[in-house]
Amino acid sequence: MFNQLGLVGCGLMGGSFALALRRAGLVQRVVGYSKSPRTTERARQLGIIDTEAASALAAASGSDLVLVAVPVASTEATLKAIRHALAPHTLVMDVGSTKRDVVDAARRALQGQFGMLVPAHPIAGKEVSGIEHADADLYRGRQVILTPTEKTLSDQLQRATALWTALGCKVLHMSPEQHDAAFAAVSHLPHLLAFAAVNALCQQPEGQHYLGLAGSGFRDFSRIAASEPTMWRDILLANREEVLLQSSAFRRQLEALEQRIAAGDAEALEALIAQASQARAQWTMASHSNPT
Amino acid sequence: MFNQLGLVGCGLMGGSFALALRRAGLVQRVVGYSKSPRTTERARQLGIIDTEAASALAAASGSDLVLVAVPVASTEATLKAIRHALAPHTLVMDVGSTKRDVVDAARRALQGQFGMLVPAHPIAGKEVSGIEHADADLYRGRQVILTPTEKTLSDQLQRATALWTALGCKVLHMSPEQHDAAFAAVSHLPHLLAFAAVNALCQQPEGQHYLGLAGSGFRDFSRIAASEPTMWRDILLANREEVLLQSSAFRRQLEALEQRIAAGDAEALEALIAQASQARAQWTMASHSNPT
Repeated sequence: MFNQLGLVGCGLMGGSFALALRRAGLVQRVVGYSKSPRTTERARQLGIIDTEAASALAAASGSDLVLVAVPVASTEATLKAIRHALAPHTLVMDVGSTKRDVVDAARRALQGQFGMLVPAHPIAGKEVSGIEHADADLYRGRQVILTPTEKTLSDQLQRATALWTALGCKVLHMSPEQHDAAFAAVSHLPHLLAFAAVNALCQQPEGQHYLGLAGSGFRDFSRIAASEPTMWRDILLANREEVLLQSSAFRRQLEALEQRIAAGDAEALEALIAQASQARAQWTMASHSNPT
Repeated sequence: MFNQLGLVGCGLMGGSFALALRRAGLVQRVVGYSKSPRTTERARQLGIIDTEAASALAAASGSDLVLVAVPVASTEATLKAIRHALAPHTLVMDVGSTKRDVVDAARRALQGQFGMLVPAHPIAGKEVSGIEHADADLYRGRQVILTPTEKTLSDQLQRATALWTALGCKVLHMSPEQHDAAFAAVSHLPHLLAFAAVNALCQQPEGQHYLGLAGSGFRDFSRIAASEPTMWRDILLANREEVLLQSSAFRRQLEALEQRIAAGDAEALEALIAQASQARAQWTMASHSNPT
């Protein structure tokens, strides 16, 4: 049980965390701050936070739990802004989709206090953003990756693990490097491909007409293309080496398929499709008690 | 109202059509045939057909409505097999995902009777196949593209339009060429990309581990990769020119994104993502009363 959550960034991820924490009875009070005073006010009106803070520092002051839920590119400035408010036992976490850059930023910003931070990536989200879409169920049944470093205090890691577990999540520990390599493959590349596919469609003279004909396959395939541009700009840039590696691997597989199609090689084409089809049919999402 | 539906091919598409037709009270009797006697038997056991036919010809005999719901590559042989059973006013339709090849095959197979066929593509499906998944609601609220040629009899086209409309579909008429160009963009390319993405993931040494970390973005993006290999082999080959054109257009957009990422050009990258994000956020699936 925490006395006070200092929520820095009242968006979909932060707001959903506050709601989940409240519902689980794990926090007494939530003090929130967002860059836009309007957003902070809205978070209070929606009952997601109790008190509006005038600054990130004010939100962190007196909080024994601080969640930094800002665009990853703002992590360093945010941590610098709050570091003087952090009491020795404050548990600090982020929710960024990339982890090497967050860890590097935190090392610079927090210096001697770097061990207080437990870098976290809950594998949850929506293609819509903003406090209006905050949802107490967003994290339930989902995986949360914690990426401790050699400096991370082990009791902080334990508390973070217990906290996410209490919210109904399955907690995994990985290094920041392992995390970024894995999520380049299963998340960042799919987003990149969905952006490229929608752009390719819209660039065509008949693009709008074609879009009107698209069905449920396109709907699901392209859902993530509607994601928030600044967030995804930051993710793709922060993890650029891994993303470009994955994109190259993808291109090779696309070329293999294209070559079979161009050659009319039915047997080889079917073998490649069957490989994908079987792999995807066998896959089920981990800790999947609450599909959304 | 039809006296008898001759269903040639008792799979997901054909079985769902029979169920929808029955429920709408538009047919008195369904005679079915599938290449595998087991499938035909199962269709009868499930109440989807009334009578098992021993051949495609037998299913078409005495039917005033014939639905050919076989893999597109089998269309020509199937139409050849049934042509002598077609009475002058029999309405013949297919449900293939490509239309130029179906029209060419039908022209060869049906010759003087070619005008009886109304080529149809209902924009509906699932990533699972087979009679067990047949669903009376599969087509409801969906678009159906009819692709008549200069030979198609206009009363057949009218009857086909009325029939699909009565099943709750929105019917559009296009040329086979327009159809194939459009569906290369909105359906065939997304499938190709999903196959390539899943193969790229699985080829990696850590692929299985990565798959275990994937969340709902990957789930939806890759759903269509589980589609039936032989069906998609045939679609990609039948529509190869258009598919390869779309794949080239996609590659150019992917390269544009990769270049911005490699150059660290945040502004240009965000602009490209924003374009995709806005286009996808504004899109809604046409005639969408029954999302599945």
